[in-house]
Amino acid sequence: MKETVLTGIQTSGTPHLGNYVGAIRPAIEASRRTDARSFYFLADYHSIISSHDPARLRQSSMEVAAAWLAMGLDTDNAVFYRQSDIPEIPELTWVLTCMTAKGLMNRAHSYKAKVQVNEENRTGDPDKGITMGLFSYPILMAADILMFKAHKIPVGKDQIQHIEMARDIAARFNHHYGDHFVLPEAMIDDSVAVLSGLDGRKMSKSYNNTIPLFLPEKKLRKLIMKIKTNSLEPGEPKATEGCTLFEIFRAFATEAEVADVKKRYEAGIAWGEMKQFLFEYLNEILSPFRDTYDRLIANPGDIEAELIKGRDRAREFSVPFLKEIREAVGFTPLG
Amino acid sequence: MKETVLTGIQTSGTPHLGNYVGAIRPAIEASRRTDARSFYFLADYHSIISSHDPARLRQSSMEVAAAWLAMGLDTDNAVFYRQSDIPEIPELTWVLTCMTAKGLMNRAHSYKAKVQVNEENRTGDPDKGITMGLFSYPILMAADILMFKAHKIPVGKDQIQHIEMARDIAARFNHHYGDHFVLPEAMIDDSVAVLSGLDGRKMSKSYNNTIPLFLPEKKLRKLIMKIKTNSLEPGEPKATEGCTLFEIFRAFATEAEVADVKKRYEAGIAWGEMKQFLFEYLNEILSPFRDTYDRLIANPGDIEAELIKGRDRAREFSVPFLKEIREAVGFTPLG
Repeated sequence: MKETVLTGIQTSGTPHLGNYVGAIRPAIEASRRTDARSFYFLADYHSIISSHDPARLRQSSMEVAAAWLAMGLDTDNAVFYRQSDIPEIPELTWVLTCMTAKGLMNRAHSYKAKVQVNEENRTGDPDKGITMGLFSYPILMAADILMFKAHKIPVGKDQIQHIEMARDIAARFNHHYGDHFVLPEAMIDDSVAVLSGLDGRKMSKSYNNTIPLFLPEKKLRKLIMKIKTNSLEPGEPKATEGCTLFEIFRAFATEAEVADVKKRYEAGIAWGEMKQFLFEYLNEILSPFRDTYDRLIANPGDIEAELIKGRDRAREFSVPFLKEIREAVGFTPLG
Repeated sequence: MKETVLTGIQTSGTPHLGNYVGAIRPAIEASRRTDARSFYFLADYHSIISSHDPARLRQSSMEVAAAWLAMGLDTDNAVFYRQSDIPEIPELTWVLTCMTAKGLMNRAHSYKAKVQVNEENRTGDPDKGITMGLFSYPILMAADILMFKAHKIPVGKDQIQHIEMARDIAARFNHHYGDHFVLPEAMIDDSVAVLSGLDGRKMSKSYNNTIPLFLPEKKLRKLIMKIKTNSLEPGEPKATEGCTLFEIFRAFATEAEVADVKKRYEAGIAWGEMKQFLFEYLNEILSPFRDTYDRLIANPGDIEAELIKGRDRAREFSVPFLKEIREAVGFTPLG
């Protein structure tokens, strides 16, 4: 049996260069592996934990799906679906909820961090502003993973605990009801690039310092011109280390191109020149993808068709497997 | 629009006389009301919170469904379904989970009672043995109620808080997403009879003192002979107050019959005679229902057919209404 790899995709916000380099690009490369079964899903049941704006949720789901498709996700090999198209997921979530110790959720880092903020702010209620969605989403995540018998979950270090929780819940279920679930493992890739944003901090929606992946040319140029540099004059030799412009360039360039630009830094390239160069370089790479992206956004029915294709393929697994789980717990027709 | 009344039926244990008098009989009478829409469901998603024995769960669901049908539930007028046949319920549960404050669940009496036991036993962990199913089932209950826009929920006093929680959750959702849910109200019937069991305490599965509703004649007689009485001799006048035999009789008898038996108590009826009389009286009432019950248990496909009929009628509501809720939160097809 092939190894199964499953990746959840956040549907909040507009995809940016940092998302691409850190998550989308490696995942798209992995989507072409024929030695593994790959599942990729838009995690919109998760989005409604924090986003209660339906128009924004829709827009964001569309942009994220379009970005992944435009950048080349192989949806014939990998299964690409929208979580909320799989009704077996919330049903499995409830079944797992009944097998999850409350103490396990009490220990979740994400929950404890919110409680700590409440305590620091002396709100008088450690659970102030915390919904049951936030408290129990590790169970939903376990259902996402266990439904497709995923062996490997590519995650950042902050997500390792959630994979361990999914293992715990699966093991408890298997212990009670027999061996139904595969115990998943976190797959950490430390080599994944992290990009800095406009202000030099890590590029992130929450810092409001991102460069969206699919900007019109003029806007892309404008943002690149805004990237913070030091105050060295044209002609003065410059370090590539710690330079956001160089870091972004390197994330896309070949070794030869990187070596060439390093020389230009030593020779004292002007920041304005480097910015113009980076803009032209990125623009040339992104243009064809941007065209595809724009075409998809203009024809959302094409995105929907891909998601429906993925839904049908995903449900080939989830429908019979949920039936198996229902039988295990005792939900079977009489007679 | 007709008033909608919704009743959940526990699927744990074998139905007994106390269940019949306290819950089944009034519900069956209500199932014939044509001035209301009535929904009755086997609460098996709730059962898996505490019951992890699939064979017992199946057996119990079958016995409970057969009992309600045998006693005359009007399934042409009322909608009678199995909760686990409605996949829209767990999906709505997740949507509501995202709109439920954790603090609301912290305050649930049933959860707090378990914590108190842990504290009294100095377990060192207030949440010891508590699952997320137990912690979050008021959200599942809210989904049960809100899905069918129920106005009135007939409940015991211990359940009032759960109905208030369903109101809270519905109101919060309506406030954010617009008016979609009906705010339900608890309907308390204080006149409902409570029966004592074999040992004189309230008849309850947890006291192991019940008289099952559909025992074979000999077993029914044997159990009635076991009912605890005082030690008054034949010929001594006896009080009807506090007498379990009389209490059970009264729950089934006409006023004239009750008056007659009261006279026999005053005249000093022997306990053995009263027991034989109660057995014959109950047996005559229960025999025809017992025949129907036995026929259903022997033909579980007939029970299943009723549940499938109910499922299809229930989903006529739940499928379009969940679609409405999904649209409200932002789960809509692209394009």
